[in-house]
Amino acid sequence: MSSLPQHSRTARPPLGVGMVGHSFMGRVHSHAWRSVDAFFDLPMRPELRVVAGRDAARVEAAAARLGWAESTTDWRELLDRDDIALIDICAQGSVHAEIAIAALEAGKHVLCEKPLANTPAEAEAMARAAAAAAERGVLAMVGFNYRRVPALTLARTLVADGRLGTIRHVRARYLQDWIVDPEHPLVWRLVREEAGSGALGDIGAHIIDLAEFLTGDHITGVSAVTETFVHKRPLGTAGSGIGAQAAGPTSGSADGIGTVTVDDAAIFLARTSGGALATFEATRFATGRKNALSIELNGSRGSLSFDFEAMNDLWFHDHDEPAATAGFRRITVTEPTHPYTGAWWPPGHGLGYEHSFTHQARDLVEAIATGTTPQPSFDDGLRVQRVLAAVEASAADSSRWTPVDG
Amino acid sequence: MSSLPQHSRTARPPLGVGMVGHSFMGRVHSHAWRSVDAFFDLPMRPELRVVAGRDAARVEAAAARLGWAESTTDWRELLDRDDIALIDICAQGSVHAEIAIAALEAGKHVLCEKPLANTPAEAEAMARAAAAAAERGVLAMVGFNYRRVPALTLARTLVADGRLGTIRHVRARYLQDWIVDPEHPLVWRLVREEAGSGALGDIGAHIIDLAEFLTGDHITGVSAVTETFVHKRPLGTAGSGIGAQAAGPTSGSADGIGTVTVDDAAIFLARTSGGALATFEATRFATGRKNALSIELNGSRGSLSFDFEAMNDLWFHDHDEPAATAGFRRITVTEPTHPYTGAWWPPGHGLGYEHSFTHQARDLVEAIATGTTPQPSFDDGLRVQRVLAAVEASAADSSRWTPVDG
Amino acid sequence: MSSLPQHSRTARPPLGVGMVGHSFMGRVHSHAWRSVDAFFDLPMRPELRVVAGRDAARVEAAAARLGWAESTTDWRELLDRDDIALIDICAQGSVHAEIAIAALEAGKHVLCEKPLANTPAEAEAMARAAAAAAERGVLAMVGFNYRRVPALTLARTLVADGRLGTIRHVRARYLQDWIVDPEHPLVWRLVREEAGSGALGDIGAHIIDLAEFLTGDHITGVSAVTETFVHKRPLGTAGSGIGAQAAGPTSGSADGIGTVTVDDAAIFLARTSGGALATFEATRFATGRKNALSIELNGSRGSLSFDFEAMNDLWFHDHDEPAATAGFRRITVTEPTHPYTGAWWPPGHGLGYEHSFTHQARDLVEAIATGTTPQPSFDDGLRVQRVLAAVEASAADSSRWTPVDG
Amino acid sequence: MSSLPQHSRTARPPLGVGMVGHSFMGRVHSHAWRSVDAFFDLPMRPELRVVAGRDAARVEAAAARLGWAESTTDWRELLDRDDIALIDICAQGSVHAEIAIAALEAGKHVLCEKPLANTPAEAEAMARAAAAAAERGVLAMVGFNYRRVPALTLARTLVADGRLGTIRHVRARYLQDWIVDPEHPLVWRLVREEAGSGALGDIGAHIIDLAEFLTGDHITGVSAVTETFVHKRPLGTAGSGIGAQAAGPTSGSADGIGTVTVDDAAIFLARTSGGALATFEATRFATGRKNALSIELNGSRGSLSFDFEAMNDLWFHDHDEPAATAGFRRITVTEPTHPYTGAWWPPGHGLGYEHSFTHQARDLVEAIATGTTPQPSFDDGLRVQRVLAAVEASAADSSRWTPVDG
Repeated sequence: MSSLPQHSRTARPPLGVGMVGHSFMGRVHSHAWRSVDAFFDLPMRPELRVVAGRDAARVEAAAARLGWAESTTDWRELLDRDDIALIDICAQGSVHAEIAIAALEAGKHVLCEKPLANTPAEAEAMARAAAAAAERGVLAMVGFNYRRVPALTLARTLVADGRLGTIRHVRARYLQDWIVDPEHPLVWRLVREEAGSGALGDIGAHIIDLAEFLTGDHITGVSAVTETFVHKRPLGTAGSGIGAQAAGPTSGSADGIGTVTVDDAAIFLARTSGGALATFEATRFATGRKNALSIELNGSRGSLSFDFEAMNDLWFHDHDEPAATAGFRRITVTEPTHPYTGAWWPPGHGLGYEHSFTHQARDLVEAIATGTTPQPSFDDGLRVQRVLAAVEASAADSSRWTPVDG
Repeated sequence: MSSLPQHSRTARPPLGVGMVGHSFMGRVHSHAWRSVDAFFDLPMRPELRVVAGRDAARVEAAAARLGWAESTTDWRELLDRDDIALIDICAQGSVHAEIAIAALEAGKHVLCEKPLANTPAEAEAMARAAAAAAERGVLAMVGFNYRRVPALTLARTLVADGRLGTIRHVRARYLQDWIVDPEHPLVWRLVREEAGSGALGDIGAHIIDLAEFLTGDHITGVSAVTETFVHKRPLGTAGSGIGAQAAGPTSGSADGIGTVTVDDAAIFLARTSGGALATFEATRFATGRKNALSIELNGSRGSLSFDFEAMNDLWFHDHDEPAATAGFRRITVTEPTHPYTGAWWPPGHGLGYEHSFTHQARDLVEAIATGTTPQPSFDDGLRVQRVLAAVEASAADSSRWTPVDG
Repeated sequence: MSSLPQHSRTARPPLGVGMVGHSFMGRVHSHAWRSVDAFFDLPMRPELRVVAGRDAARVEAAAARLGWAESTTDWRELLDRDDIALIDICAQGSVHAEIAIAALEAGKHVLCEKPLANTPAEAEAMARAAAAAAERGVLAMVGFNYRRVPALTLARTLVADGRLGTIRHVRARYLQDWIVDPEHPLVWRLVREEAGSGALGDIGAHIIDLAEFLTGDHITGVSAVTETFVHKRPLGTAGSGIGAQAAGPTSGSADGIGTVTVDDAAIFLARTSGGALATFEATRFATGRKNALSIELNGSRGSLSFDFEAMNDLWFHDHDEPAATAGFRRITVTEPTHPYTGAWWPPGHGLGYEHSFTHQARDLVEAIATGTTPQPSFDDGLRVQRVLAAVEASAADSSRWTPVDG
Repeated sequence: MSSLPQHSRTARPPLGVGMVGHSFMGRVHSHAWRSVDAFFDLPMRPELRVVAGRDAARVEAAAARLGWAESTTDWRELLDRDDIALIDICAQGSVHAEIAIAALEAGKHVLCEKPLANTPAEAEAMARAAAAAAERGVLAMVGFNYRRVPALTLARTLVADGRLGTIRHVRARYLQDWIVDPEHPLVWRLVREEAGSGALGDIGAHIIDLAEFLTGDHITGVSAVTETFVHKRPLGTAGSGIGAQAAGPTSGSADGIGTVTVDDAAIFLARTSGGALATFEATRFATGRKNALSIELNGSRGSLSFDFEAMNDLWFHDHDEPAATAGFRRITVTEPTHPYTGAWWPPGHGLGYEHSFTHQARDLVEAIATGTTPQPSFDDGLRVQRVLAAVEASAADSSRWTPVDG
């Protein structure tokens, strides 16, 4: 049913996985590890060995629910286990560097959620650790999952095949609205020391990575504005949703009010190494837009447009068509010949958010089995981190054009 | 994260499941049974005990891949197992009646894929068996999974709440295009004795059930036309896709060509017990439409529109709004307050095809645990079967208006 | 700017027009006659000579507002005028036959609004008169204006060019909602003796014609259901909108309540001479759908889809495309190479409802100047009338399959 | 049929109009002047007196085609005519200031196409002339026609009514693709001394004006990048389309190649006086986007979204709705209660590009008759000019944040 490589499923070696963190990202990663082997012909058999978390009761319950054999409150234990070959880091950004570097040094492959770190310095250390580990055959990957939404993987293929010609414009937005209400509590994602930045690093990082992935080019410089619309919020936890956990104890004042120390929104202009102009916007204040990651590329031979709120569709304008029959076509990316989708359901039976993570797991298992460097690499993650830093630097300096380091 | 009932997850009884069939439907049901317990707070813990299939090697491989503990080539073995409480029938329609009736008589709960059977007579026998079983606390459910696409569950809620007023029109279509090419082989779904009917029973059944589910009314009569556009096809199997298996040995002639004995398309008019006019269309010849199950309801107070090719969206026109601001609104059905979706991801992170089956599994486990009759029942499946029969009768009698029996 | 034929604009002969009726259709026809010469290179110069109406004051005011040189209360006067070569009939259906036949016999070219007549007998007489007139070089055209919405003209071209292959399905709907409220008054369009039929003839006629125009085939038989949802309505006029005029004096009872004597909705199945199955729906009870004339064709090589509520777009699926890049493309029909649009604005600057009438006027002037039979002809209008009659006959006879006469 | 003010149509005074320029803008303005009186109840009767152009033969032909009584090659003649009260300036931007100032000083009302001028200095002189003329009851209006697309007029009403709450984001783009081909000739719109700027002033001006109009706020500063992708182009005229005329004689070199001296694209960030962040993009290199003027506003209580390629629709998200039924609704802006549309056709019968000009003409006639200052004023046009200048200044100074003067 799929054109993906075939492996004998009997006598495959196991791939022991240990995961750190078990909230939103931990849930979706667990689902990927539980599901991937039923749909793809993998060269290794993933096994969900141990999940690590800070609270013993919560991590034990999570293990039972999410399908992990064991749990622990000490992520370092995972590094000592011979039956664990891969560390999957789903904890918050402030601990990525410490865990990833330790894991790589311990000879464990690493999958690390994005953004790679909270600062370029951390990300550089991680990239160095990944380079050193690669010498020893130990692999590292950063979890920009949207690259593996089939419509976006297809988009990259069309660009790489030259169907867009020279790319002139990139137009990327990631719009959410979950903190429009000023009474929404000060969850950890709104505190700089825990989250690094706000909308910029949380969702802006995704569209920066996508812009580079889809074009195959780098962002060379930016001009930016960031804004915090609501500065004070009540302390507490959100009942549900993204980043429901409360901020840490240092963030509040005695009156139950805390200070937002990250951006609510970031907008920026950029140029790519391929000569395109790009506009970016990341915000949590776009009322009615829930998870509207959208990106459009305009090239000399055609254009592509995508919106995650209709994630199975890719819109493609082929400028080589006669004008009389040209137009953006809605490709429903569910055909056997499309990336990944042949492994799932018949045409027209769409996939959901979590499938991108299952595809990520599939590709990582293949990479580990074949000793190939997985994409996106820690270097890719570092480059995104440098763009984030350049955005903040430009915003702090009257939007002045700021080259991206490296 | 969810408003669904909470259960203590420790000390829950297991619910042993045995499944018959392991192709398309078997794959998606297996995924549902594997996944449901991680996302929903279930009163029982589903266990994937045994899968049955006709070919020993294939069913054994399927068990390994799909997560079943054991496999067998004799579905009757499942009825003898004390550790199996639920039989999940994913085999083709021609064996539904035999398996379901035997299972119910053996005291097993039954989940049976749609259409319930290949004839009304079979369906009636199944409904009688279900009624008898219910007396003994044994439950039966038919697998019209689309009822549990969150957007359609929400649609039913809006209708039941009166938001549409008196329903005047139902407009239902299920469009596919997988046999447009006359060289597509004569797979089993194109042979009457195996599949019962063609597009009518395979996909038309879904929109009949949805029309009744959404309106809360019954279809009282029909006027129909059916057509077979391509009468002869090569024997063989399709490489992939829907109904890839070849037709049985009696279907072909010596020259490698076989006869299509089912409809390629069915169109029909209907009236509902609520006074609405309805139009239905089921076809496998709608080029470019892959799995376009669409349904629209127009009522005196509002309208609803849905297309499975954008399955996370429900379009709602509220006619009580002032005309200046009225219009079909696109509800992205991924909010915590929407049916089922709170158990999954944050708003805007869409679900896919298989989630409807996971929701079905969740509701069935709840029903078994609480001894409640699950919906849709075998009576619901029987009613659909009678509509299918009326469609064929009308088509065979110059489209004459044909009341639906019962 | 246009690929349309060029004429010397100086020394062109005039084409004197006389119009009967000046309400909704009269307004839009007048606009067409006033505008067409500024945008198209016409071989004759249309002149708005006389408008005829029943009420002297109203027709005089209409003449002033709509740009007619003179007005009269006697349409027969138009037939005596040497300076009038074309009679444009915008009066209601019940008088079409009388006026059109008299005009043709008087040697005047005729443009007659649709539906051609209120009965097949009238339409037959009109078609006979048109045939006789044609012998004398006098031309007749029926005003199915939607044929000249550029997107639909383009659709016809694509079908005629074979881009759809063999057509399997036609799916046509015309949905409005202006009488959903049971307090909407009994305007003339709801009375059989004035309007002939209800939604069927008023809007159903358009989609019947379009189905034949686009496919190039004829409708050979139908099976139908019609319904009147609201039987009693208050007498009076509607403040605005479609058919605002009150019904005639014989329609009401002493209590200010009148009886609806036409259908509110009609649904029907059909077959075409090309072997396609077709579904039709015409209703004034589709809440939220304002003027939703939509039609889709599915053929062996491709599909087309159109919705008048986005009238500048034609959706085309080219099934010859590789599956990986196939999909319905949105053609914005505003290119210089598209039908008619080169005469208007640059690409992307959309047209509106009235432009279809301006295009109709343009083509009729060309036909008159060159002595070519204009399309759609009275024969085309007669054929639609026969389909309407077959629909009513089938609905009155248990939806039995009813061949279309002729 | 309309809620607009009613005037007695008899005994109305005439309003003599003289127009300068007769290409694209002249054609659409002429259509507006010819049509407006048939659809709206105007207090004065517009009369198309004289059109002025540079070439005698061409302007004479244009007068005949477009409906003007006379033509001239000297626009100054229009200022001497007592029967002309309004000068409509459709010539290119480089002559706006001279004509407008002379006309205002001659006591003629002025409608001037946008952008108001090619430089802020010219625009300031024009605004001063308008202020002086206003003292004498002589009025001036700048032609930002998109304000009068009904969907955008409705959008302004919803914002003014507070339905969006505090506006946080503006997202405005104007995308075209007519010079993607590097062989497209060097038409006048690509030469700075004739056009002032490129995409920025031609189409960027529209979205700057719309952002201010819709929010009711001013743009206070910008950070910008501009780019010219194709620097050399062949001399010559385009066969059709936007700006078909060749550039003037000084632009080319002996080899038939000329230099593009304006921007092909401009992207910029902005802040509004209301505290919103805004992103803007104007380009002629967005393949497949023909006239994609789109704008979205996100506020604390709701959002609005519009795309001119579907110009009859306004999308409105009401954040006060319960989340379960909230979503962007597609308002088809064709109801009698919508701005302007009651004067045209029944609901669902859409309007086209030129209607915005007809509405502009209607409102200007009302303003002249009542002595009210029309909107947008020359001050509005000046403010746009200052934003354009700030964009160019920022782009020339490393994208540094540049306050908008005034």
